Amino acid sequence: MPASDVPTTHPRYLSLITRERIVAGVQRGVTSLHGLIAHGRGEAFDYLLGERTHPFAQRAIAAAAAALRAARHPVISVNGNACAMAAGDLVRLAKATGARLEVNIFHTSPEREQAIRAMLLEAGADRVLMPSRTHAISHIDHNRKWVHPEGILMADVVCVPLEDGDRCEALVKNGKQVITIDLNPLSRTARTAQITIVDNLTRCLPRLADLAEFSTPGSGTALSDWDNQAVLSEAETAMRTPRSPS
Amino acid sequence: MPASDVPTTHPRYLSLITRERIVAGVQRGVTSLHGLIAHGRGEAFDYLLGERTHPFAQRAIAAAAAALRAARHPVISVNGNACAMAAGDLVRLAKATGARLEVNIFHTSPEREQAIRAMLLEAGADRVLMPSRTHAISHIDHNRKWVHPEGILMADVVCVPLEDGDRCEALVKNGKQVITIDLNPLSRTARTAQITIVDNLTRCLPRLADLAEFSTPGSGTALSDWDNQAVLSEAETAMRTPRSPS
Repeated sequence: MPASDVPTTHPRYLSLITRERIVAGVQRGVTSLHGLIAHGRGEAFDYLLGERTHPFAQRAIAAAAAALRAARHPVISVNGNACAMAAGDLVRLAKATGARLEVNIFHTSPEREQAIRAMLLEAGADRVLMPSRTHAISHIDHNRKWVHPEGILMADVVCVPLEDGDRCEALVKNGKQVITIDLNPLSRTARTAQITIVDNLTRCLPRLADLAEFSTPGSGTALSDWDNQAVLSEAETAMRTPRSPS
Repeated sequence: MPASDVPTTHPRYLSLITRERIVAGVQRGVTSLHGLIAHGRGEAFDYLLGERTHPFAQRAIAAAAAALRAARHPVISVNGNACAMAAGDLVRLAKATGARLEVNIFHTSPEREQAIRAMLLEAGADRVLMPSRTHAISHIDHNRKWVHPEGILMADVVCVPLEDGDRCEALVKNGKQVITIDLNPLSRTARTAQITIVDNLTRCLPRLADLAEFSTPGSGTALSDWDNQAVLSEAETAMRTPRSPS
Protein backbone atom coordinates (compact mmCIF):
# COMPACT_ATOMS: atom_id res chain seq x y z
CA MET A 1 0.00 0.00 0.00
CA PRO A 2 1.39 3.45 -0.85
CA ALA A 3 2.23 5.83 1.99
CA SER A 4 -0.79 7.86 2.98
CA ASP A 5 -1.02 11.60 3.56
CA VAL A 6 -4.06 11.22 5.83
CA PRO A 7 -3.03 12.47 9.30
CA THR A 8 -3.56 9.86 12.01
CA THR A 9 -5.25 12.56 14.08
CA HIS A 10 -8.08 12.94 11.53
CA PRO A 11 -11.36 12.01 13.25
CA ARG A 12 -12.28 9.81 10.31
CA TYR A 13 -8.81 8.32 9.85
CA LEU A 14 -9.92 4.68 9.63
CA SER A 15 -12.56 5.48 7.02
CA LEU A 16 -10.11 7.48 4.92
CA ILE A 17 -7.40 4.83 5.14
CA THR A 18 -9.90 2.18 4.12
CA ARG A 19 -10.86 4.29 1.12
CA GLU A 20 -7.17 4.47 0.19
CA ARG A 21 -6.93 0.70 0.39
CA ILE A 22 -9.86 0.36 -2.03
CA VAL A 23 -8.28 2.82 -4.45
CA ALA A 24 -4.95 0.95 -4.16
CA GLY A 25 -6.96 -2.22 -4.88
CA VAL A 26 -8.17 -0.71 -8.16
CA GLN A 27 -4.60 0.21 -9.04
CA ARG A 28 -3.33 -3.34 -8.53
CA GLY A 29 -6.26 -4.91 -10.34
CA VAL A 30 -8.00 -6.40 -7.28
CA THR A 31 -11.01 -4.09 -7.08
CA SER A 32 -13.37 -3.12 -9.91
CA LEU A 33 -14.62 0.41 -10.48
CA HIS A 34 -18.07 -0.93 -9.55
CA GLY A 35 -16.44 -1.87 -6.25
CA LEU A 36 -15.64 1.80 -5.58
CA ILE A 37 -19.32 2.67 -5.90
CA ALA A 38 -20.32 -0.19 -3.62
CA HIS A 39 -17.75 1.06 -1.11
CA GLY A 40 -19.20 4.57 -1.27
CA ARG A 41 -22.60 3.12 -0.44
CA GLY A 42 -21.09 1.26 2.49
CA GLU A 43 -19.47 4.45 3.77
CA ALA A 44 -22.85 6.17 3.82
CA PHE A 45 -24.46 3.36 5.83
CA ASP A 46 -21.51 3.30 8.23
CA TYR A 47 -21.84 7.03 8.73
CA LEU A 48 -25.52 6.54 9.63
CA LEU A 49 -24.45 3.90 12.14
CA GLY A 50 -22.02 6.33 13.76
CA GLU A 51 -19.00 4.38 12.46
CA ARG A 52 -18.93 2.11 15.48
CA THR A 53 -19.55 -1.54 16.28
CA HIS A 54 -22.97 -1.75 17.93
CA PRO A 55 -24.07 -4.40 20.46
CA PHE A 56 -26.20 -6.12 17.77
CA ALA A 57 -23.04 -6.50 15.68
CA GLN A 58 -21.02 -7.76 18.64
CA ARG A 59 -23.65 -10.48 19.24
CA ALA A 60 -23.55 -11.49 15.57
CA ILE A 61 -19.74 -11.60 15.65
CA ALA A 62 -19.91 -14.04 18.56
CA ALA A 63 -22.51 -16.17 16.77
CA ALA A 64 -20.41 -16.18 13.60
CA ALA A 65 -17.26 -17.20 15.49
CA ALA A 66 -19.17 -20.09 17.09
CA ALA A 67 -20.66 -21.20 13.75
CA LEU A 68 -17.26 -21.15 12.04
CA ARG A 69 -15.67 -23.07 14.91
CA ALA A 70 -18.44 -25.69 14.84
CA ALA A 71 -18.35 -26.15 11.05
CA ARG A 72 -16.92 -29.25 9.41
CA HIS A 73 -15.98 -27.50 6.16
CA PRO A 74 -16.02 -23.73 6.62
CA VAL A 75 -15.12 -21.54 3.65
CA ILE A 76 -14.51 -17.79 3.39
CA SER A 77 -15.52 -16.39 0.00
CA VAL A 78 -13.37 -13.42 -1.02
CA ASN A 79 -14.21 -10.74 -3.60
CA GLY A 80 -12.26 -7.68 -4.71
CA ASN A 81 -13.45 -5.21 -2.10
CA ALA A 82 -13.03 -7.62 0.81
CA CYS A 83 -9.52 -8.48 -0.34
CA ALA A 84 -8.48 -4.85 -0.85
CA MET A 85 -9.85 -3.78 2.52
CA ALA A 86 -8.79 -6.68 4.71
CA ALA A 87 -6.62 -9.37 3.08
CA GLY A 88 -4.56 -9.84 6.25
CA ASP A 89 -7.56 -10.17 8.54
CA LEU A 90 -9.25 -12.62 6.15
CA VAL A 91 -6.15 -14.83 6.20
CA ARG A 92 -6.00 -14.61 9.99
CA LEU A 93 -9.68 -15.57 10.27
CA ALA A 94 -9.14 -18.54 7.94
CA LYS A 95 -6.27 -19.80 10.08
CA ALA A 96 -8.16 -19.27 13.34
CA THR A 97 -11.16 -21.27 12.13
CA GLY A 98 -9.56 -23.78 9.77
CA ALA A 99 -11.62 -22.25 6.95
CA ARG A 100 -10.53 -22.38 3.33
CA LEU A 101 -10.26 -19.18 1.33
CA GLU A 102 -11.98 -19.16 -2.07
CA VAL A 103 -12.02 -16.35 -4.62
CA ASN A 104 -15.39 -15.35 -6.09
CA ILE A 105 -16.22 -12.11 -7.89
CA PHE A 106 -19.36 -10.66 -9.48
CA HIS A 107 -18.12 -9.29 -12.80
CA THR A 108 -16.26 -11.93 -14.84
CA SER A 109 -12.49 -11.31 -14.91
CA PRO A 110 -9.88 -14.10 -14.68
CA GLU A 111 -7.17 -11.43 -14.30
CA ARG A 112 -8.86 -9.93 -11.27
CA GLU A 113 -9.40 -13.40 -9.75
CA GLN A 114 -5.66 -14.03 -10.06
CA ALA A 115 -4.82 -10.62 -8.59
CA ILE A 116 -6.99 -11.38 -5.55
CA ARG A 117 -5.36 -14.78 -5.13
CA ALA A 118 -1.90 -13.19 -5.29
CA MET A 119 -2.81 -10.60 -2.67
CA LEU A 120 -4.13 -13.25 -0.27
CA LEU A 121 -0.96 -15.34 -0.72
CA GLU A 122 1.15 -12.23 -0.04
CA ALA A 123 -0.89 -11.68 3.12
CA GLY A 124 0.14 -15.12 4.34
CA ALA A 125 -2.49 -17.54 3.03
CA ASP A 126 -1.23 -21.13 2.66
CA ARG A 127 -3.70 -21.96 -0.12
CA VAL A 128 -6.31 -20.03 -2.06
CA LEU A 129 -9.01 -21.93 -3.97
CA MET A 130 -10.15 -20.58 -7.33
CA PRO A 131 -13.57 -21.04 -8.91
CA SER A 132 -13.53 -23.98 -11.30
CA ARG A 133 -15.35 -23.90 -14.63
CA THR A 134 -16.63 -27.43 -14.01
CA HIS A 135 -18.41 -27.24 -10.65
CA ALA A 136 -21.28 -24.85 -9.97
CA ILE A 137 -23.89 -24.20 -7.32
CA SER A 138 -27.54 -24.12 -8.39
CA HIS A 139 -30.10 -21.29 -8.37
CA ILE A 140 -27.80 -18.69 -9.90
CA ASP A 141 -26.82 -18.11 -13.51
CA HIS A 142 -23.99 -15.61 -13.70
CA ASN A 143 -20.25 -15.74 -13.02
CA ARG A 144 -20.78 -16.31 -9.32
CA LYS A 145 -22.15 -19.82 -9.74
CA TRP A 146 -18.70 -21.35 -10.31
CA VAL A 147 -17.08 -22.88 -7.25
CA HIS A 148 -14.14 -25.05 -6.27
CA PRO A 149 -15.06 -28.71 -5.60
CA GLU A 150 -13.07 -28.77 -2.33
CA GLY A 151 -14.28 -25.32 -1.29
CA ILE A 152 -17.75 -23.85 -1.45
CA LEU A 153 -19.19 -26.91 -3.21
CA MET A 154 -18.65 -29.11 -0.14
CA ALA A 155 -18.84 -26.36 2.51
CA ASP A 156 -21.40 -26.49 5.31
CA VAL A 157 -20.71 -22.92 6.51
CA VAL A 158 -19.75 -20.10 4.13
CA CYS A 159 -18.70 -16.64 5.23
CA VAL A 160 -19.42 -14.14 2.43
CA PRO A 161 -18.38 -10.60 3.32
CA LEU A 162 -19.85 -7.81 1.15
CA GLU A 163 -21.90 -10.24 -0.95
CA ASP A 164 -24.41 -9.80 -3.77
CA GLY A 165 -28.02 -10.67 -2.89
CA ASP A 166 -28.52 -13.19 -5.69
CA ARG A 167 -25.49 -15.20 -4.67
CA CYS A 168 -26.33 -15.11 -0.98
CA GLU A 169 -29.80 -16.48 -1.76
CA ALA A 170 -28.32 -19.18 -3.97
CA LEU A 171 -25.89 -20.31 -1.26
CA VAL A 172 -28.76 -20.64 1.22
CA LYS A 173 -30.86 -22.55 -1.33
CA ASN A 174 -27.89 -24.88 -1.80
CA GLY A 175 -28.14 -25.79 1.86
CA LYS A 176 -25.24 -23.73 3.18
CA GLN A 177 -25.23 -21.86 6.47
CA VAL A 178 -24.33 -18.36 5.41
CA ILE A 179 -22.60 -15.68 7.47
CA THR A 180 -22.37 -12.24 5.93
CA ILE A 181 -20.86 -8.89 6.83
CA ASP A 182 -22.94 -6.07 5.36
CA LEU A 183 -23.43 -2.46 6.47
CA ASN A 184 -26.90 -2.29 4.92
CA PRO A 185 -29.42 -4.15 7.09
CA LEU A 186 -32.04 -3.72 4.33
CA SER A 187 -30.08 -5.51 1.63
CA ARG A 188 -31.24 -8.87 0.36
CA THR A 189 -27.90 -10.27 1.44
CA ALA A 190 -28.44 -9.08 5.01
CA ARG A 191 -31.98 -10.43 5.03
CA THR A 192 -31.11 -13.79 3.47
CA ALA A 193 -28.03 -14.85 5.44
CA GLN A 194 -28.54 -16.83 8.63
CA ILE A 195 -26.05 -14.65 10.54
CA THR A 196 -25.63 -11.01 9.52
CA ILE A 197 -22.92 -8.83 11.02
CA VAL A 198 -24.03 -5.25 10.32
CA ASP A 199 -20.66 -3.61 10.72
CA ASN A 200 -17.67 -2.30 8.83
CA LEU A 201 -15.51 -5.17 7.59
CA THR A 202 -12.30 -3.58 8.86
CA ARG A 203 -13.74 -3.09 12.36
CA CYS A 204 -15.37 -6.48 12.82
CA LEU A 205 -12.88 -8.90 11.24
CA PRO A 206 -10.19 -8.51 13.95
CA ARG A 207 -12.83 -9.08 16.63
CA LEU A 208 -14.22 -12.08 14.77
CA ALA A 209 -10.74 -13.59 14.47
CA ASP A 210 -10.05 -12.89 18.18
CA LEU A 211 -13.22 -14.68 19.22
CA ALA A 212 -12.56 -17.59 16.88
CA GLU A 213 -9.01 -17.94 18.23
CA PHE A 214 -9.67 -17.58 21.92
CA SER A 215 -13.19 -18.88 22.53
CA THR A 216 -13.83 -22.51 23.36
CA PRO A 217 -15.73 -24.54 20.76
CA GLY A 218 -19.42 -24.73 21.60
CA SER A 219 -19.54 -21.30 23.21
CA GLY A 220 -21.86 -18.64 21.85
CA THR A 221 -25.48 -18.94 20.79
CA ALA A 222 -26.33 -22.11 18.87
CA LEU A 223 -27.56 -21.29 15.35
CA SER A 224 -30.92 -22.91 16.15
CA ASP A 225 -31.46 -20.26 18.84
CA TRP A 226 -30.10 -17.36 16.83
CA ASP A 227 -32.54 -14.54 16.02
CA ASN A 228 -31.09 -12.78 12.99
CA GLN A 229 -34.28 -10.77 12.45
CA ALA A 230 -33.74 -9.08 15.82
CA VAL A 231 -30.26 -8.01 14.72
CA LEU A 232 -31.60 -6.55 11.49
CA SER A 233 -34.38 -4.66 13.26
CA GLU A 234 -31.99 -3.19 15.82
CA ALA A 235 -29.57 -2.21 13.07
CA GLU A 236 -32.29 -0.56 11.02
CA THR A 237 -33.48 1.39 14.05
CA ALA A 238 -29.93 2.52 14.83
CA MET A 239 -29.45 3.62 11.23
CA ARG A 240 -32.69 5.55 10.97
CA THR A 241 -32.48 7.30 14.34
CA PRO A 242 -31.20 10.87 14.20
CA ARG A 243 -27.96 11.13 16.14
CA SER A 244 -27.68 13.60 18.95
CA PRO A 245 -25.46 16.48 17.84
CA SER A 246 -21.83 15.79 18.68
CA MET B 1 -21.26 1.39 -23.13
CA PRO B 2 -19.69 -2.07 -22.95
CA ALA B 3 -21.96 -5.10 -22.98
CA SER B 4 -23.12 -5.89 -19.46
CA ASP B 5 -22.89 -9.20 -17.67
CA VAL B 6 -25.61 -8.21 -15.19
CA PRO B 7 -28.50 -10.64 -15.76
CA THR B 8 -31.77 -8.86 -16.58
CA THR B 9 -33.45 -11.13 -14.04
CA HIS B 10 -31.46 -9.55 -11.18
CA PRO B 11 -33.98 -7.78 -8.90
CA ARG B 12 -31.73 -4.74 -8.68
CA TYR B 13 -31.04 -4.64 -12.42
CA LEU B 14 -31.78 -0.91 -12.84
CA SER B 15 -29.45 0.05 -10.00
CA LEU B 16 -26.66 -2.19 -11.33
CA ILE B 17 -27.06 -0.91 -14.90
CA THR B 18 -26.92 2.67 -13.63
CA ARG B 19 -23.71 1.75 -11.83
CA GLU B 20 -22.35 0.44 -15.14
CA ARG B 21 -23.22 3.72 -16.82
CA ILE B 22 -21.21 5.62 -14.22
CA VAL B 23 -18.25 3.28 -14.68
CA ALA B 24 -18.51 3.68 -18.47
CA GLY B 25 -18.57 7.42 -17.80
CA VAL B 26 -15.21 7.17 -16.05
CA GLN B 27 -13.82 5.17 -18.94
CA ARG B 28 -14.84 7.79 -21.50
CA GLY B 29 -13.64 10.68 -19.36
CA VAL B 30 -17.06 12.06 -18.40
CA THR B 31 -17.14 11.07 -14.71
CA SER B 32 -14.45 11.66 -12.09
CA LEU B 33 -13.38 9.02 -9.59
CA HIS B 34 -14.83 11.26 -6.88
CA GLY B 35 -18.10 10.92 -8.77
CA LEU B 36 -18.07 7.16 -8.23
CA ILE B 37 -18.02 7.56 -4.47
CA ALA B 38 -20.70 10.24 -4.59
CA HIS B 39 -22.84 7.84 -6.62
CA GLY B 40 -22.37 5.13 -4.02
CA ARG B 41 -23.56 7.51 -1.35
CA GLY B 42 -26.64 8.25 -3.46
CA GLU B 43 -27.33 4.53 -3.74
CA ALA B 44 -27.42 4.29 0.06
CA PHE B 45 -29.99 7.07 0.36
CA ASP B 46 -32.07 5.48 -2.40
CA TYR B 47 -32.02 2.21 -0.47
CA LEU B 48 -33.41 3.99 2.58
CA LEU B 49 -36.17 5.43 0.41
CA GLY B 50 -37.06 1.94 -0.83
CA GLU B 51 -35.76 2.72 -4.35
CA ARG B 52 -39.10 4.18 -5.41
CA THR B 53 -40.54 7.55 -6.35
CA HIS B 54 -42.54 8.77 -3.36
CA PRO B 55 -45.58 11.11 -3.51
CA PHE B 56 -43.46 14.02 -2.20
CA ALA B 57 -41.13 13.50 -5.18
CA GLN B 58 -44.02 13.26 -7.60
CA ARG B 59 -45.35 16.63 -6.35
CA ALA B 60 -41.91 18.19 -6.74
CA ILE B 61 -41.61 16.77 -10.26
CA ALA B 62 -44.91 18.46 -11.18
CA ALA B 63 -43.78 21.75 -9.64
CA ALA B 64 -40.45 21.53 -11.47
CA ALA B 65 -42.16 20.83 -14.81
CA ALA B 66 -44.42 23.86 -14.28
CA ALA B 67 -41.51 26.11 -13.30
CA LEU B 68 -39.45 25.06 -16.33
CA ARG B 69 -42.43 25.58 -18.64
CA ALA B 70 -43.13 29.03 -17.17
CA ALA B 71 -39.49 30.16 -17.33
CA ARG B 72 -38.28 32.71 -19.86
CA HIS B 73 -34.69 31.42 -19.94
CA PRO B 74 -34.51 27.96 -18.38
CA VAL B 75 -31.12 26.23 -18.24
CA ILE B 76 -30.17 22.68 -17.27
CA SER B 77 -26.69 22.50 -15.70
CA VAL B 78 -24.96 19.18 -16.45
CA ASN B 79 -22.07 17.61 -14.53
CA GLY B 80 -20.25 14.31 -15.06
CA ASN B 81 -22.48 12.01 -13.05
CA ALA B 82 -25.71 13.45 -14.44
CA CYS B 83 -24.39 13.10 -17.99
CA ALA B 84 -23.16 9.53 -17.49
CA MET B 85 -26.40 8.40 -15.87
CA ALA B 86 -28.95 10.17 -18.04
CA ALA B 87 -27.60 12.06 -21.07
CA GLY B 88 -30.59 11.05 -23.23
CA ASP B 89 -33.18 12.07 -20.65
CA LEU B 90 -31.44 15.41 -20.04
CA VAL B 91 -31.56 16.16 -23.77
CA ARG B 92 -35.21 15.15 -23.89
CA LEU B 93 -36.03 17.41 -20.93
CA ALA B 94 -34.21 20.32 -22.57
CA LYS B 95 -36.24 19.90 -25.76
CA ALA B 96 -39.53 19.50 -23.89
CA THR B 97 -39.00 22.73 -21.93
CA GLY B 98 -36.95 24.82 -24.36
CA ALA B 99 -34.15 24.83 -21.80
CA ARG B 100 -30.50 25.25 -22.76
CA LEU B 101 -27.95 22.66 -21.67
CA GLU B 102 -24.80 24.02 -20.02
CA VAL B 103 -21.81 22.02 -18.80
CA ASN B 104 -20.54 22.73 -15.28
CA ILE B 105 -18.29 20.48 -13.21
CA PHE B 106 -16.80 20.68 -9.72
CA HIS B 107 -13.19 19.61 -10.26
CA THR B 108 -11.50 21.72 -12.97
CA SER B 109 -10.93 19.72 -16.17
CA PRO B 110 -11.37 21.17 -19.65
CA GLU B 111 -11.00 17.64 -21.07
CA ARG B 112 -13.88 16.36 -18.99
CA GLU B 113 -16.03 19.37 -19.91
CA GLN B 114 -15.46 18.55 -23.59
CA ALA B 115 -16.22 14.86 -23.01
CA ILE B 116 -19.55 15.78 -21.38
CA ARG B 117 -20.39 18.11 -24.26
CA ALA B 118 -19.60 15.36 -26.78
CA MET B 119 -21.80 12.86 -24.96
CA LEU B 120 -24.75 15.28 -24.85
CA LEU B 121 -24.37 15.99 -28.58
CA GLU B 122 -24.27 12.25 -29.28
CA ALA B 123 -27.45 11.90 -27.23
CA GLY B 124 -29.17 14.33 -29.61
CA ALA B 125 -28.58 17.80 -28.15
CA ASP B 126 -28.71 20.60 -30.76
CA ARG B 127 -26.39 22.86 -28.77
CA VAL B 128 -24.41 22.56 -25.57
CA LEU B 129 -23.14 25.70 -23.82
CA MET B 130 -19.72 25.64 -22.18
CA PRO B 131 -18.59 27.70 -19.20
CA SER B 132 -16.77 30.82 -20.38
CA ARG B 133 -13.67 32.13 -18.63
CA THR B 134 -15.04 35.68 -18.92
CA HIS B 135 -18.46 35.52 -17.25
CA ALA B 136 -18.97 34.37 -13.68
CA ILE B 137 -21.71 34.28 -11.07
CA SER B 138 -20.99 35.85 -7.67
CA HIS B 139 -20.77 34.30 -4.20
CA ILE B 140 -18.59 31.37 -5.26
CA ASP B 141 -14.88 31.17 -5.94
CA HIS B 142 -13.96 27.84 -7.46
CA ASN B 143 -14.31 26.37 -10.94
CA ARG B 144 -18.09 26.37 -10.73
CA LYS B 145 -18.40 30.16 -10.87
CA TRP B 146 -17.76 30.29 -14.62
CA VAL B 147 -20.89 30.40 -16.79
CA HIS B 148 -21.93 30.99 -20.38
CA PRO B 149 -23.34 34.49 -21.04
CA GLU B 150 -26.35 33.10 -22.94
CA GLY B 151 -26.85 30.29 -20.46
CA ILE B 152 -26.79 30.37 -16.67
CA LEU B 153 -25.75 34.04 -16.56
CA MET B 154 -29.09 35.17 -18.01
CA ALA B 155 -31.22 32.25 -16.79
CA ASP B 156 -34.24 32.82 -14.56
CA VAL B 157 -34.72 29.10 -13.77
CA VAL B 158 -31.80 26.67 -13.45
CA CYS B 159 -32.16 22.91 -13.01
CA VAL B 160 -29.05 21.52 -11.26
CA PRO B 161 -29.23 17.73 -10.81
CA LEU B 162 -26.77 16.24 -8.27
CA GLU B 163 -25.37 19.64 -7.35
CA ASP B 164 -22.75 20.76 -4.85
CA GLY B 165 -24.12 22.79 -1.92
CA ASP B 166 -21.84 25.79 -2.43
CA ARG B 167 -22.89 26.25 -6.02
CA CYS B 168 -26.57 25.76 -5.28
CA GLU B 169 -26.39 28.51 -2.66
CA ALA B 170 -24.53 30.80 -5.07
CA LEU B 171 -27.15 30.35 -7.78
CA VAL B 172 -29.91 31.27 -5.35
CA LYS B 173 -27.95 34.33 -4.14
CA ASN B 174 -27.60 35.35 -7.80
CA GLY B 175 -31.38 35.52 -8.02
CA LYS B 176 -32.03 32.28 -9.87
CA GLN B 177 -34.94 29.95 -9.21
CA VAL B 178 -33.19 26.65 -8.57
CA ILE B 179 -34.58 23.16 -9.10
CA THR B 180 -32.45 20.27 -7.87
CA ILE B 181 -32.61 16.48 -7.89
CA ASP B 182 -30.91 15.05 -4.80
CA LEU B 183 -31.44 11.78 -2.92
CA ASN B 184 -30.30 13.28 0.39
CA PRO B 185 -32.99 15.54 1.86
CA LEU B 186 -30.52 16.74 4.50
CA SER B 187 -27.92 18.06 2.06
CA ARG B 188 -27.30 21.80 1.75
CA THR B 189 -28.28 21.54 -1.91
CA ALA B 190 -31.64 20.00 -1.02
CA ARG B 191 -32.24 22.62 1.67
CA THR B 192 -31.17 25.60 -0.46
CA ALA B 193 -32.98 24.94 -3.77
CA GLN B 194 -36.51 26.31 -4.18
CA ILE B 195 -37.76 23.00 -5.62
CA THR B 196 -36.10 19.77 -4.49
CA ILE B 197 -36.92 16.44 -6.11
CA VAL B 198 -35.76 13.80 -3.63
CA ASP B 199 -35.54 10.91 -6.05
CA ASN B 200 -33.16 8.91 -8.19
CA LEU B 201 -32.20 10.87 -11.32
CA THR B 202 -32.86 7.93 -13.64
CA ARG B 203 -36.34 7.39 -12.20
CA CYS B 204 -37.53 10.99 -12.10
CA LEU B 205 -36.14 12.49 -15.31
CA PRO B 206 -38.44 10.54 -17.67
CA ARG B 207 -41.43 11.57 -15.54
CA LEU B 208 -40.29 15.18 -15.47
CA ALA B 209 -39.90 15.19 -19.26
CA ASP B 210 -43.34 13.56 -19.69
CA LEU B 211 -44.99 16.22 -17.55
CA ALA B 212 -43.14 19.02 -19.30
CA GLU B 213 -44.16 17.66 -22.70
CA PHE B 214 -47.78 16.86 -22.05
CA SER B 215 -48.96 19.32 -19.39
CA THR B 216 -50.44 22.68 -20.31
CA PRO B 217 -48.44 25.77 -19.34
CA GLY B 218 -49.65 27.25 -16.06
CA SER B 219 -50.70 23.91 -14.60
CA GLY B 220 -49.12 22.73 -11.34
CA THR B 221 -48.49 24.67 -8.16
CA ALA B 222 -47.19 28.20 -8.67
CA LEU B 223 -43.76 28.63 -7.12
CA SER B 224 -45.13 31.28 -4.75
CA ASP B 225 -47.40 28.60 -3.24
CA TRP B 226 -44.79 25.86 -3.22
CA ASP B 227 -43.78 24.46 0.18
CA ASN B 228 -40.37 22.90 -0.33
CA GLN B 229 -39.84 22.47 3.41
CA ALA B 230 -42.82 20.10 3.51
CA VAL B 231 -41.20 17.97 0.81
CA LEU B 232 -37.94 17.79 2.74
CA SER B 233 -39.68 16.88 5.98
CA GLU B 234 -41.69 14.12 4.32
CA ALA B 235 -38.57 12.81 2.61
CA GLU B 236 -36.61 12.76 5.86
CA THR B 237 -39.46 10.93 7.58
CA ALA B 238 -39.60 8.38 4.76
CA MET B 239 -35.85 7.91 4.98
CA ARG B 240 -35.96 7.36 8.71
CA THR B 241 -39.04 5.13 8.88
CA PRO B 242 -38.31 1.40 9.07
CA ARG B 243 -39.97 -0.47 6.24
CA SER B 244 -42.57 -3.07 7.02
CA PRO B 245 -41.19 -6.56 6.35
CA SER B 246 -41.83 -7.61 2.74
